[in-house]
Amino acid sequence: MFATVDVALFRINPDVGTGQLELLLWRRKADSDTFPNCFALPGGYVFENTDEQLQDTVSRLIINKVGVEPAHIEQVCTVGNAKRDPRGWSMTVLHLALVPFSRSALVSDEQCWVPARHYANSTAQEQNKGDKNQQNNDHALPFDHNQLVTLAVERLSSKALYTSQPLYLAEPTCSLPELQRIYEELLQNKLHKKAFRDRLLATNLLVDTGKRIQGRGSPTVLYHIQQTGITTFERVMQGHKKD
Amino acid sequence: MFATVDVALFRINPDVGTGQLELLLWRRKADSDTFPNCFALPGGYVFENTDEQLQDTVSRLIINKVGVEPAHIEQVCTVGNAKRDPRGWSMTVLHLALVPFSRSALVSDEQCWVPARHYANSTAQEQNKGDKNQQNNDHALPFDHNQLVTLAVERLSSKALYTSQPLYLAEPTCSLPELQRIYEELLQNKLHKKAFRDRLLATNLLVDTGKRIQGRGSPTVLYHIQQTGITTFERVMQGHKKD
Repeated sequence: MFATVDVALFRINPDVGTGQLELLLWRRKADSDTFPNCFALPGGYVFENTDEQLQDTVSRLIINKVGVEPAHIEQVCTVGNAKRDPRGWSMTVLHLALVPFSRSALVSDEQCWVPARHYANSTAQEQNKGDKNQQNNDHALPFDHNQLVTLAVERLSSKALYTSQPLYLAEPTCSLPELQRIYEELLQNKLHKKAFRDRLLATNLLVDTGKRIQGRGSPTVLYHIQQTGITTFERVMQGHKKD
Repeated sequence: MFATVDVALFRINPDVGTGQLELLLWRRKADSDTFPNCFALPGGYVFENTDEQLQDTVSRLIINKVGVEPAHIEQVCTVGNAKRDPRGWSMTVLHLALVPFSRSALVSDEQCWVPARHYANSTAQEQNKGDKNQQNNDHALPFDHNQLVTLAVERLSSKALYTSQPLYLAEPTCSLPELQRIYEELLQNKLHKKAFRDRLLATNLLVDTGKRIQGRGSPTVLYHIQQTGITTFERVMQGHKKD
């Protein structure tokens, strides 16, 4: 039995489309006995002798393989079975982590940011079926990491529906239209502008900075985000109702 | 390193107050090398040789130590550290399970149902402080099980706020007032009758059986619950607003 921790770190890249969900991958060492040189989720063993708690393993991974300080980290779930790792029965505690784009610079040549959804959902299932002819084959990750990415993306989408969790992906100072684009990317759905504002402002996590950006229409308010935990909305986010 | 699974199985006992949240405990074997004869959460080792998946460990525990078939099981979180078990570094994957009262009969003399909240919250913290003079001392569980119960009860309360999860604690055929008492016990809060009905009926999980119970006022509708998964409410449950 061995235990590992894997981290799915996400950012929203505002320079791709209206903001694309991206995932950090890390290249496995050339001398690794499993999947050498392959890109995978940053992960590693729990060291019984030096990690007093599971959290110590997570902190070590963040420092050594992620390199940026996430704004938020949470457990998603634990996956354990005899087949996920060729070395034997293993359990991994999957964590998701979120970072604002401005703080997400790569710290190593052995890392890259990739479009998260290309590695999730049907891609992972296709890989498991061994369908080598799919054009999605480029998105196969070692072990069960496609499945882990899927689970993490599902958790993100689910929490975007009813909580303020996505604010951890935003810049410390931002506008409501910028936040709406983050939610729309996570939910893969257009949102009604006024309904979105009502939910976000009711959390009391946004503080008016007094600054305004002048665009084509009326000035856009800049808010400072108070990172004081995750708030549950009184009403969930819904897709945009067509006229 | 060793890995275990622990199960916090809950029911609502309608015969205590307006319905009390209860937890199943199981007596550890007399020849156990840790905490012999103590009552604890049903739990056990992951057997690498016979459990192909983590889920197989859970199923084995349910059969051997719980004895009833839960209506719902889900992972809560994983707790791992060097100190929680005197035998060494260990990780446990905590699960919560829910069963309707009518299906919750004990299957062994070595089991008991206890009031869940007596074993959660401040009790666990007091135990950790080693305060031996507290009258709550009777509620100390082995290992970190008080903390695990706290985490499971918190998850239950949190999900009651915005999902249909508590329906798994209800009888297959029941009335809205019965369901409201379950939610009020989980949320520890009175709910507004009409608001409660609106949220539950909007899930489309309740099917009118055509049967009615005649009480003091107008007849009460009996519904059949369709156990087809957990639905997120469009509006969260809130406490009762005072006049």
